[in-house]
Amino acid sequence: MTGKVQNIRIALDAMGGDYAPADIVQGAVMATEKGDIDIYLVGPSDAVMAEMLKYDTSDLSICLVHAEEVVPEGINPALSVRKMPNSSIALAARMVRDREADGFVSAGPTGSVVTAALQYLGMIDGIDRPVIGGAIFDKAPDTVVFDCGVNIDCKPYHLLTFAIIGHVFCRKFLGIDRPKIGLLNIGAEKDKGNLLTKEAYQLLDKSGLNFVGNIEGNQMMDGVANVLVCDGFIGNVIFKFCGSVGLFKDVAATSGNKQGGGIIFGINGIVRKVQGSSRAQHVAATILQTKEAIRTGFIDALKTELCNVTKRIKT
Amino acid sequence: MTGKVQNIRIALDAMGGDYAPADIVQGAVMATEKGDIDIYLVGPSDAVMAEMLKYDTSDLSICLVHAEEVVPEGINPALSVRKMPNSSIALAARMVRDREADGFVSAGPTGSVVTAALQYLGMIDGIDRPVIGGAIFDKAPDTVVFDCGVNIDCKPYHLLTFAIIGHVFCRKFLGIDRPKIGLLNIGAEKDKGNLLTKEAYQLLDKSGLNFVGNIEGNQMMDGVANVLVCDGFIGNVIFKFCGSVGLFKDVAATSGNKQGGGIIFGINGIVRKVQGSSRAQHVAATILQTKEAIRTGFIDALKTELCNVTKRIKT
Repeated sequence: MTGKVQNIRIALDAMGGDYAPADIVQGAVMATEKGDIDIYLVGPSDAVMAEMLKYDTSDLSICLVHAEEVVPEGINPALSVRKMPNSSIALAARMVRDREADGFVSAGPTGSVVTAALQYLGMIDGIDRPVIGGAIFDKAPDTVVFDCGVNIDCKPYHLLTFAIIGHVFCRKFLGIDRPKIGLLNIGAEKDKGNLLTKEAYQLLDKSGLNFVGNIEGNQMMDGVANVLVCDGFIGNVIFKFCGSVGLFKDVAATSGNKQGGGIIFGINGIVRKVQGSSRAQHVAATILQTKEAIRTGFIDALKTELCNVTKRIKT
Repeated sequence: MTGKVQNIRIALDAMGGDYAPADIVQGAVMATEKGDIDIYLVGPSDAVMAEMLKYDTSDLSICLVHAEEVVPEGINPALSVRKMPNSSIALAARMVRDREADGFVSAGPTGSVVTAALQYLGMIDGIDRPVIGGAIFDKAPDTVVFDCGVNIDCKPYHLLTFAIIGHVFCRKFLGIDRPKIGLLNIGAEKDKGNLLTKEAYQLLDKSGLNFVGNIEGNQMMDGVANVLVCDGFIGNVIFKFCGSVGLFKDVAATSGNKQGGGIIFGINGIVRKVQGSSRAQHVAATILQTKEAIRTGFIDALKTELCNVTKRIKT
């Protein structure tokens, strides 16, 4: 050991997205030029090498890792993982599992990325299903919404885990020391709501998090809460609605989630989905954001907070 | 009979709202000046008469109906009906029950208005709970949302009744002959959604209504559907959210529902809640809208459609 801090290593699916492999490889080159990062470009060697040869990568820390197969758009996600164990997505996920990479980035089909992540990395203990969220309001950059994904028919405990993920997100990515946690609801009083939110209120109240109570629809963007906790059904509707009426943030948040990208939270490892339509510049930016997420120790912090909150709930 | 069409008769709670009885009485005068309407001003005779004396009502069809009590703000709704059977709200509701009035308008406490309506008029067969909705988007005047109220933890059948109410609303108030019914959901495909929407989809599909399928959050304002059907939890959040970000319609829809007013649908009679902060001009406009709702035969049309759809669902 020379005392040099080891670079963060990212397994990058070279074959995912509308402009792969060209824009993925170019994005990798742009990201590594900024230094402090090792990128493993995962994909069929012929196709990836042809793109790499367009650049002088001799001084860049980019390695090619051969993967035989490419997951096509539209395939059933479960099938893509079961039938294609040597796809670029599956291989990149296994590199994280085997500690050959610190995180995994793909612009491939979301379902296949999530399924491979579940298969090879698994969930963090205490989180049942993958969660997506982040800052989605243009006028409230310090307010994040969890879950914006597909966690529907939630149990109260799921909403508690969304709160914990949002709490760690705000601390690690937004630099908010004691994020205010709000429960999206239809009234301010603690006994308001549906069966889900009434029970979730009790859990959040005991969580030891900085729970500020119920937040109504008209308060979502006024900064009363840093974390808006909700079932993924309503999160999904709000997320898409905001996009359609120009209420989105101009710049994606640190972990980003604009137009379907973002870290897939709850997976036992940093897995970052990039929107399929991304060009090289966005791929590069995403790689650097993912590096930051790894550098902040997000996964370990989340595990610690889950453990702490679970203890408080049980006492 | 002289062949003259009988005026529509409205029982108006003279004591509800922030500016009662002054602005309520003035609103009644303004509305009756436009003709074709009989108003029964319901409230303590001294207080109401003092206001009526400010106007020359000799040529106007306004009658005073004495009610001993006034329901105060903040009272428990159930208590207000049980303990105050002679309040202006209770009396106005009973006038509709007893066919002495065709509809009932109040700017009093919403809970007490709804509870009195339930107590004295009851629900229409096939509708379990009161429903609130209407056109809420500024850029989509021909799109109504049901339920925007407090129907939470809905069963699939409830969503079907919202669709039917929305269908009749569009036909009677917006002049849309064959309204497009959309189910607010998190994906376009028919098997997408939570337990509620998946089952509701099946019912809507068999309803014989002009069901256009699932509508995602980004499509709510683009006119794909005239009726957006959703659980009242999400309807409430969207309604309040739109209000907070300036997406509301400038002019309230025919039956209005801006800032908490609107017809309470599902009650077996036309019951119109007026926002508590309304001034005379808004009271007058609301009375005239209520007259139109009665004139269109909304309640009978709704009963007919409920009956038709129920038959189709069962076959």
